[in-house]
Amino acid sequence: MIQKVLVANRGEIAVRVIRACKELGIETVAIYSEPDRESLHVQIADEAYCVGPTLSKDSYLNKTNIMSVAKLTNCDAIHPGYGFLSENADFAEMCEECNVTFIGPSADSISRMGTKDVARETMKEAGVPIVPGSEGIIENIEEGKKTAQSIGYPVIIKATAGGGGKGIRVAQDEEELVQGIRLTQNEAETAFGNPGVYLEKYIEDFRHVEIQILADKHGNTVHLGERDCSVQRRLQKLIEETPSPAVDEELRQEMGDAAVRAAQAVDYVGAGTIEFIFDKKESRFYFMEMNTRIQVEHPVTEMVTGVDLIKEQLNVANGKALTFYQEDIKFEGWSIECRINAEDPYKNFMPSAGKVEMYLPPGGFGVRVDSAAYTGWNIPPYYDSMIAKLITHGRTREEAIERMNRALDEFVIEGIHSTIPFHKRMMNHQVFIDGDFNTKFLDDHKVMEDDN
Amino acid sequence: MIQKVLVANRGEIAVRVIRACKELGIETVAIYSEPDRESLHVQIADEAYCVGPTLSKDSYLNKTNIMSVAKLTNCDAIHPGYGFLSENADFAEMCEECNVTFIGPSADSISRMGTKDVARETMKEAGVPIVPGSEGIIENIEEGKKTAQSIGYPVIIKATAGGGGKGIRVAQDEEELVQGIRLTQNEAETAFGNPGVYLEKYIEDFRHVEIQILADKHGNTVHLGERDCSVQRRLQKLIEETPSPAVDEELRQEMGDAAVRAAQAVDYVGAGTIEFIFDKKESRFYFMEMNTRIQVEHPVTEMVTGVDLIKEQLNVANGKALTFYQEDIKFEGWSIECRINAEDPYKNFMPSAGKVEMYLPPGGFGVRVDSAAYTGWNIPPYYDSMIAKLITHGRTREEAIERMNRALDEFVIEGIHSTIPFHKRMMNHQVFIDGDFNTKFLDDHKVMEDDN
Repeated sequence: MIQKVLVANRGEIAVRVIRACKELGIETVAIYSEPDRESLHVQIADEAYCVGPTLSKDSYLNKTNIMSVAKLTNCDAIHPGYGFLSENADFAEMCEECNVTFIGPSADSISRMGTKDVARETMKEAGVPIVPGSEGIIENIEEGKKTAQSIGYPVIIKATAGGGGKGIRVAQDEEELVQGIRLTQNEAETAFGNPGVYLEKYIEDFRHVEIQILADKHGNTVHLGERDCSVQRRLQKLIEETPSPAVDEELRQEMGDAAVRAAQAVDYVGAGTIEFIFDKKESRFYFMEMNTRIQVEHPVTEMVTGVDLIKEQLNVANGKALTFYQEDIKFEGWSIECRINAEDPYKNFMPSAGKVEMYLPPGGFGVRVDSAAYTGWNIPPYYDSMIAKLITHGRTREEAIERMNRALDEFVIEGIHSTIPFHKRMMNHQVFIDGDFNTKFLDDHKVMEDDN
Repeated sequence: MIQKVLVANRGEIAVRVIRACKELGIETVAIYSEPDRESLHVQIADEAYCVGPTLSKDSYLNKTNIMSVAKLTNCDAIHPGYGFLSENADFAEMCEECNVTFIGPSADSISRMGTKDVARETMKEAGVPIVPGSEGIIENIEEGKKTAQSIGYPVIIKATAGGGGKGIRVAQDEEELVQGIRLTQNEAETAFGNPGVYLEKYIEDFRHVEIQILADKHGNTVHLGERDCSVQRRLQKLIEETPSPAVDEELRQEMGDAAVRAAQAVDYVGAGTIEFIFDKKESRFYFMEMNTRIQVEHPVTEMVTGVDLIKEQLNVANGKALTFYQEDIKFEGWSIECRINAEDPYKNFMPSAGKVEMYLPPGGFGVRVDSAAYTGWNIPPYYDSMIAKLITHGRTREEAIERMNRALDEFVIEGIHSTIPFHKRMMNHQVFIDGDFNTKFLDDHKVMEDDN
C-alpha cells in the first residue's frame, strides 16, 4: 500500500494531488524549482525539496534529481500531475526500474498512444471511429495525392511524432498538398527527428468532446461521461463543461463505449481521457487522441459524478479494484470550469506575472476553486500562466452559468492582470449561453475586441 | 416579481443572500452598522447604507431605519437572514404594512411558533409528538405536583415566553419542583413580563435532530431530510451534519412527515426548520421548537440535495410553486459543517476580535466556505463570533470527515484566534468518528483540556 507520494509537479495540480493524499492519510513530498520556493504546494506538503533551477528541463523535467528525492525520502510512488513528465514513457520506465510506483498507465500504454499513427491504427482495429485518412505513414507524394483524392479536400497533414500544434498543416487542394507534405516532413525531421507524416480529412467545424475513463488492474474499465472543451484559443482550452450541450444520452453511451474500447485496446490502467472530434453537422465522432494522465479539466467530471478522480488513481495504483461499476455512475446537474490565467485579455492575452497583492477566491454553494495562489504570492514568469480553476455546479446549465457569473464578480486577484474579464464576457455571450458553438468560437466572435 | 432585495443582516449570511440574489439577477441593498463599514457584505452588494451605530438595537434591529432604506432605495423585498429581525413578528407585519415583501413566513406563523405553550398545543393537535408534560400553563403548585408525578421525575420547568436558555429549570424531585416553579415564574415575570410556566419530562440524553422544510403559497410542503446538530457547547451548535448517524430511512420518513404536518398546522410559507429531541434509548422523537427562518446550518442540506434554499425562499416569496416535489428530493452522500468562531479554544473559547492579518480559505473538491472574512478585515467585537462556515461533502461520512480534516489543516486565519484547533480535535475524536454521541458530548469529553 502506498504510504508516501512524491508529487512531481507544481501549482494547482500539485496542490490538488496533495489534498487527495492528505484525505487518504498518505504522506506527501513536494518538489520545486528555485523560483517556486514560496509556492503553496511547497507549504502544504509534509516535505519539500528543490530539484533544480528555473528552467523546467533542469527542475520539473529533471528525471534523475526527482528520482533521487523520491528514493532519499522513501517515497513508494510518484504522481506526475499533467504536463511535465506525465506522458513521458521513459520516466514511467525509470520508475519501474527504481521500484517506485508511477501513478499512471504503463510505459507501453503511454508509447502506444503517444505515437499518432500507431494510436490511429490501434483505434481502427478496436472499432473506434477515426477520421478518414491514409493508412499509416505516407510513402511518397503520389500516395498522398491518391489518398487526398479519395477522402476529399481539405485534408490535414500531420507529423506522427508531432504534438502541441506543431507539425500540422492544412491543404485545400493538390498544390497545397504537395508543398505541405514536403514542408511538414522537413519540419518534423528537424523538430522530432522523424519525418513521417500521414493524412486525415480536415474537419473544420467540430466540437471538442472528450470522455473520462478509469481502469483498474482487474480488467474493469468504466467511463464517467463527457466533457465539452470547445472554447479554445490557439488550441488552448479555456472553458470546459459537462455534460456537453451537444451530447444526448444515446450519443454519450456510444462515445463512452468507444472510449472504453480505446482504453482496453492499449491495456490502459488508471485515469485517462479519449478526445474526440465531434462533427455536429454529420452527427459523427472521431478519435483525436488519448491523454494518458489526469487532465486540467477533470474537476467538472468530479462535480457531476461525486467521484474523486485523484483518489481513484491512487486506489488503482494500489492494485485495488474501482470502487464502483459503470451502472453506479450517476450524472447530477451541470458543471463548468473557467481557467483563470495570469494574462491580460485586453492586450491579446499577454502574460502578466508579478506579485498578487490581494487574493480572495469566491465561495458559497456550488463554487469550487482549485488554485495555488495566495495574497503575497509572486507569480514566476517561467511556467504555465494558469493560476486558478474556477468551477461551478448547478442543477441546470443555466444555474451553473449564473453561479459562474457571480463567482467571477466576487473573485479578487489584485496586482496582476487575469482572464477574469474574458470569462465574464463569455458567460454573458449569447452564443455561449445558447450552447451552440464549436472550436472556432473565438475566431468567429471577437469576444474581447467587441466593445474596445 | 422581486427586483431588488434589502438584506437586513451582516456577515456570512448577508453574503450568502447577496450571492443567491446575484445569481437570480436581483439587485441587492446592504445595510451596516458604523463598525461594519468595511465588511464584505457591504462591498459586494449593489448599494449599501449605514443604519445606525454599533449596538444591534440601534442598527441591525432598528426597524424604522431599515424600512426607510428599503423604501428610499425602492426595494420590493427584505431578507432578514437569521437572528436579528428574522423571527420578529412585528417586523414582518411592518413589512406588510409598508408593502414590502418579508422573505419568510407570515407574522401569524411566526407568533404561533414563537409562543412555546401555544406551539406545543398546536403540535399536539397536528399529531406531532411532544414531550409528555402539562396541558398548557400550570395554574398552581398543586397542579404542578400532580403533573410531575404522572409524567415522572426529572421534569423541566419552562417559561412560555422564555428562550435562548433563559427561563428554564430542571427539578429532580417534588421539593425542587415547588421551589423551581416559584423561581421560574418570578424570573419570567421580570425578564419577559409573563409569569406563565409549563412542565415537560426532562430527557437528559438526546440527539438534536432537525428537519428542513420548504412550503410555497400553493399548498405544497416538502421536507429535505434531517440535520444532526448534537455537538453543542452551552446550547450553541458547533458542528452539524446530514444525514444523522442515528437516523435511518424509516425514521427519516416519519420525522419528515411530522415536520410537514407541523409546518402545515401554522400555514407555514417559506423555509423553516422543525427541531426535534431524539431519544435514542427509546427510539422516539419529540417536537422541540420551530425556527421560522433560514438556519446557520442550512448548507449541509444544500450539499446533499443540490437545492439552493435561499433561491427557493426567493422563489416562494415571488408566489411561485416549489421547483420540485417530495419524490424529486434525492440525498447524495454526506455533508458536515464546522462553525469557525473568532474564539480561543485553548482559553475557554474566549472571544478574539481584531485584524485578520492573513486569510486563505481551503478549496478543492467537496469543500465549501461561507464567510465574510478577508485579509485585512477588522473583526468587530460587538457581534456574533462566527466568522466562517466550513462545509465538506463526501460520498460517505468517512470521506466528509477526511475532507474536513485536510480543509481545516489548510485554512489560514492569522492575526486572531479561531476554533479551528477545536474542530481538528473533534474530527479526530473517536466518539465523533463513531457517530454515537448526544448533546452532552462536550460535557462528557473534555475535548480541549484532554492534553493541555
